[in-house]
Parts: sequence; C-alpha cells; structure tokens
Amino acid sequence: MGKNCLVAQSGGPTAVINASVSGVLDANLKHEHFQKVYGARNGIEGVMAGNLIDLSALNKYEIDLLKHTPASALGSCRHKMKDFNEDDSEYRMILETLEKYDIDTFFYIGGNDSMDTVHKLSLYVKNKGIDKKIVGIPKTIDNDLMETDFTPGFGSAAKYIATTVLETYLDASVYKDNGVFIVETMGRDAGWLASSSILAKINGKPVVDFIYLPENEFDKEKFLTDVKKCYEEKKQVYIVASEGLKDMNGDYVFKSKTVEVHDKFAHAQLGGVGSYLKSIIEESNITKRVKVLELGTARRAAMHCASLTDINISHLCGYRAYEMALEGKSGFMAGIKVKSKSPFETEIVEIDPSLVANKVKEIPKEWITDNFVKEELIEYLTPLIQGQPQGVYENGLPKYIKLSI
Amino acid sequence: MGKNCLVAQSGGPTAVINASVSGVLDANLKHEHFQKVYGARNGIEGVMAGNLIDLSALNKYEIDLLKHTPASALGSCRHKMKDFNEDDSEYRMILETLEKYDIDTFFYIGGNDSMDTVHKLSLYVKNKGIDKKIVGIPKTIDNDLMETDFTPGFGSAAKYIATTVLETYLDASVYKDNGVFIVETMGRDAGWLASSSILAKINGKPVVDFIYLPENEFDKEKFLTDVKKCYEEKKQVYIVASEGLKDMNGDYVFKSKTVEVHDKFAHAQLGGVGSYLKSIIEESNITKRVKVLELGTARRAAMHCASLTDINISHLCGYRAYEMALEGKSGFMAGIKVKSKSPFETEIVEIDPSLVANKVKEIPKEWITDNFVKEELIEYLTPLIQGQPQGVYENGLPKYIKLSI
Repeated sequence: MGKNCLVAQSGGPTAVINASVSGVLDANLKHEHFQKVYGARNGIEGVMAGNLIDLSALNKYEIDLLKHTPASALGSCRHKMKDFNEDDSEYRMILETLEKYDIDTFFYIGGNDSMDTVHKLSLYVKNKGIDKKIVGIPKTIDNDLMETDFTPGFGSAAKYIATTVLETYLDASVYKDNGVFIVETMGRDAGWLASSSILAKINGKPVVDFIYLPENEFDKEKFLTDVKKCYEEKKQVYIVASEGLKDMNGDYVFKSKTVEVHDKFAHAQLGGVGSYLKSIIEESNITKRVKVLELGTARRAAMHCASLTDINISHLCGYRAYEMALEGKSGFMAGIKVKSKSPFETEIVEIDPSLVANKVKEIPKEWITDNFVKEELIEYLTPLIQGQPQGVYENGLPKYIKLSI
Repeated sequence: MGKNCLVAQSGGPTAVINASVSGVLDANLKHEHFQKVYGARNGIEGVMAGNLIDLSALNKYEIDLLKHTPASALGSCRHKMKDFNEDDSEYRMILETLEKYDIDTFFYIGGNDSMDTVHKLSLYVKNKGIDKKIVGIPKTIDNDLMETDFTPGFGSAAKYIATTVLETYLDASVYKDNGVFIVETMGRDAGWLASSSILAKINGKPVVDFIYLPENEFDKEKFLTDVKKCYEEKKQVYIVASEGLKDMNGDYVFKSKTVEVHDKFAHAQLGGVGSYLKSIIEESNITKRVKVLELGTARRAAMHCASLTDINISHLCGYRAYEMALEGKSGFMAGIKVKSKSPFETEIVEIDPSLVANKVKEIPKEWITDNFVKEELIEYLTPLIQGQPQGVYENGLPKYIKLSI
C-alpha cells in the first residue's frame, strides 16, 4: 500500500467538477488514509509529465472555496490513450509518476473519454500485476454517460439554462409583436440540456413553446408549420434547440445549410442550429423578428447559479470514490443510483467503466414528442436543479480560488 | 387633484425596471394618496390607446414578487413623440386617457427617449394650463443618462457581466494553450457595461487583460501588438469589447469589416465587434484558438444575479418619485445623487428631463486608457454591484410574476 493518492480532471469543465476534488480532499481529512493528495496538472498529460502539486496543503477554508469554484482548477486535457498492446509507452510514463510519488490510488474525473482511460489503465495494471488502484469519477454537463442515473455537472447546467430561459422569455415578452426567440444549447448527441428548458415556468406553465432534440429527426416542414401557427396565435414563439439536430439523412441541419446558402444568406454561416432555424423562419416569411441566443461556455461555468443538489452529489462522488478505494475496490466509476424519487435519495455505486467509455446515453424516446417533452422527463429533471449554492461572496461577486499551478 | 395615478415602462427592459413600479405601489400603500394606481400596457402607446390595468389590485406579496421579476412587466414600446406645435394629436389622446381614468400623475420609467416624452408632455400640459403631473423615472443598463450619477438597471447588468467574465475566465484557463477569449458587451455609444468586467478578480487581480471602449478610437495595429505580446507570454488572452468600437474615421469597425471580407471571411458577418476582433487575430496568425461570447439579452434580464443595491435604488426611485409628486413637483426625472462614497449613500433628486433627453453620458476620458481602465472607474463601479437579491425560489428556480395583461 502506497502512501499517497492522485486526482486529475479531464475534458470540458463544469461548474462542479472541483466539488469532486474537494470530496476526495474532505474524505482524506476524515480518514487520513493517505499522507498526501496530489493533483496532476492538465489531466492524464500532467500525470505522464509528472506535473503534480500537493493538494493536501490546502486548508479546510480553501477546500470549501474549491468546492464552490467552477471549471477545472487542476487544468484539463483531451487525450485518448492508445491500446497498450500496441504501444504502452504512455502507460509506462504514468506508472513512473505513480511510483516516483508513491501513489497508491489515482482518481480521474471526466466523461466517457476519461472512463476509457480509467478502463484501459486499470486493465493495464491488472495485467501487469501492479498494485495500484484506478478510480473514475463522472462529470459532464451533457448528462449522456451510460449506467449512472445522471451525471455531476448536468444539474447545474440545466438550472442555468432554465433560469436563463425564464428570464429571457420575460425579456422577449415586452412588445406587442415579440417575434421568435431561439436558444441554442449544447448537446451534439443527446438533448438533455435542451430539454431542461422545460423547467422554466410562469404560474406553473412552461414558457417554452417548442423543444427540438437530436433524438428526433428534424422535419423542416413540420417545424415551419408549428412555428407559423404559434406566431399567428400569440405574436411570440420561444424555441429551444439542441446544437446536434439532424435531418432524415443523418446530417447536421446547419451544415447542409452552410453550403446551400453560401452567398444568399452568408450571415447564417457563423452559428449552428440557432442561425439555421432563424434563416429558414425568415425565408418562409413567418416574421423577420427572430433573435438567437447561444449560451456558450457561460452555461458550464455558472457556479453562481449552480444546483446545490448537483454540488453536493459531485462532492459525494469524490468522497465515496475515496472510501470505495479504501474498501479495496479498483477499476470502477463512482456512479449515481436514485434510491428513492420522493424524498429524492441517491447512493454512489460501482460501475464498470468499459460500459461507459465511448458511449452516449440518449433521452428515452417515450419521454419526448417531436417538438416537446413529456411529464416523465420533467419528473426526472426537477430534483436535479434543487437548492441554491452557498458559496462566499466578496465585494458583490462570488469568491473563487485559483490553484497556484 | 385627480384620484388616480398611472405608471408605464418604455425602451429596453432591465432586471430591475419592475422594482421602480413596485416602489410607486409601495409608496401608495404607505401614503394612500391615490385611490388607484393604473399601469399602461406597452408604454406611451398603451396610454394613448387607453390600454390600462389596475395595479392597486396587487397585494403586498405580489408587489414584492414584481420587485424581484426582471423585464418590463407592463410591456414596453419605442415611440418618439412628435413636436406638439406641429401635431398634437397624440398628446390629445394621452390627455383623453388621463381624463377618462381621473389620473392626476403619470410616472414614465425609461431612458433618454422616454425622458424626451416626459419633457415634451410636461411642457404641453403646462402650456395648456392643465393640472396634471408628469414624472420621469430613469432606467437603462447602459448607464449613459446625463445628470444622474448612475442609472437603475446598470448595477445589475454590470454584476452579471463581471460574474460571467469571472466564470468564463476560469473555464477558459484549463488547457495548456488557452487561446484568446473575447466577450462582446452592449454599449454602442458608451463603454460602461464593458468596463464593469474589471470587477472580476481572482486573488484581488483583474482577470481581464484588455478592455476596449467606444470612448477610444480603435487602433487595429496597437490592438494586434498588445494581443500578440500577451498571448506569447501567457498562452491566454481575455478581452472585453464594447459593441460600439469605432475606427479613426468614426465608422463602426465591424461594419467596414463586413464589406471588406464579404467572400473571404464570410463567417465574420453575423456578429459585430467580437467576430471582427476574432477575424483580425486569426488573419494575423497570432492563434487560431479564438472564442467569442456575446451575452445577448440574458444580461439585462438576469434578476437571479442582480445587485441588491440596484434593486433597492430602483425601488427608491419609484418611491421617491411618488413622494416628490405629492410635494407638488412635476416635469422632472427622479435622478440619483451620491451623497457619500464611504459609506455609500445616495439620495433621489429632481432633474430637468430636457437635460437627459436624447443625450449620452460617456465614461470620463481620465478614467480610462487605450486598452484598460483606471482606479477611479473601479471605485465608481464597485458600490453599484453590492449585495445579492433576496427573491423567492420555487422548485429550484426564481419565482417571477407575469401581470395578466
């Protein structure tokens, strides 16, 4: 048994990915099993390069600040590990670092690519008979990881989207003729983020008129018919669309548009789905008053508007991953299981990372319609955005920590 | 003396424009001077059309919800009143409504166009010897109204921008090579909104590298030199730019670009300044990693991230405007005067709306440099974003009210 452990972060940041790091640190404050908790800079690349910092130097106040600081404080990377049967040079570099720093357990926080790393690396050490534990901790705003009931990071992004939809809906309701307002969300393969807009309600009624998800084939004619009818009735249409909409040929709708309209509607080129939908609405003369809002990276970094449930569960994933490693487990991802819907209760369970790696979980077809979502999905989403963050404010703004790396 | 009063809202919504309505309503709960407080739908157009609702039907709980609901709950318009010497038909329609509903005082909440309406309408009734009071209440996220030390709506938009800059800066700091991140803010004629990004700090140090304001001529060569140097040093550049940047000829920089690059860089056409800056950075081969974030209408509707100071002062403007009308004043705008910087104290003062109408207040030149801002501006901005909103949450989201109009 080695003396130390190591944490690293990978892939796109989320509002709560640091909460999982703070969970590992808090577990070590409690159990004191490892002498040091190291952090690797820029994910697995930092592990290979031996670019580590000592996270156990953080005091409890700093750990709590880290818990409430968005984006990957340790830095990130996008690195695909090769098959070790073909080339194990990277694996040997990783083991060199683990040996050098006397590291027994490596916690890797990330999405399906990172679980591929966890899977391969744990196979490698097992095959070699090396006594090192490799543990995955899930994160992604996309909520598209298999096996886990939901993913840390999603609840906060969903809450940010629902809040922004609610507020921009009110903003887009002030004139006599309010035109069409389109929000484009991330979600290339699954529509979880777009669907969370359904939670934005006034007087118990959703403010969104239509939600378009990549789980459905996009039908342009039906879309234009729906939008026209809604606009004629209310002089206002609020649409949320996932960036990954595809046509019946399986092509991204905005890509075909980019080519097709190169000269005539060159303004449609920059954006993706939002600009595409705007251009077809304008072309079909429904109205020229069409606005598009792309949320950009703000949505995945918005700790100020995070879900307390999400923060706490992300923290718990790190905390329980640590404890499960102490129980002797290795080669797993610390996933989430909903034990009870009401009251909402979850537990952290061991999941085979090979079932998560390189796969995508879509919204069940029976939870959606061609342009909206059903009650089952609302019931699924609602518990995930509950509670407001309790971070520190300083001079009117949230106080965040930047690790000296 | 008539029995009732009337409130209306105009121009672009803000997060706190309803707080001023709630201020008028709270003042009437206290003083009970008017039997009814009416609201006109869609600003002065609703006054002309006699499209009113009875706001005094709202109970105290609803008034408080309204205080914490973003965007113009009464609806808005953009309407320029004609000179009454040339055509007074609109003025007569307004007076007809005021007579019909026995309205003594009309409170109009808006920006410099609305203060033009307040000025003209109060002159008209004065000239005609009609005993009606016309009162202006300021609002604009742009902070560019003359005579008032700052404007209701600006503090909340500034806080949202600073918060988003802080969070997206962390998000944009996670890789080894982070490229250039550009935030485009509103502000066609004045750079107050862009400048508020200076408040985003980590460990007391601003996270923004450069701030470009419409108060300065935009110097493309200097810009590229600055960005190149910063990128080479840190592999990360964070830029905030105001949409209204102009070149030495006084033309909007993005407009000239749109023509110039029509075919070669057609992707630059949709956006404004952000896309323009991205394109010139890419062309000059500093880096191809350039991201642009446009905040859209989210920034002016973000009550969830509003400034408590801004909410309270917007409410006070409505409240004091009511009281000043009771004292017999008319034909004024209820502006803000900073009485003391530390502790920060303000009072509401009578301002001649003709000094506000159709004018724009820029940032003083001595508060800024060619690519950054000075301490005086930071001192000016800091008190305006203090305090977090204390609105109601329901099911994980802010609870907002929509008036049944």
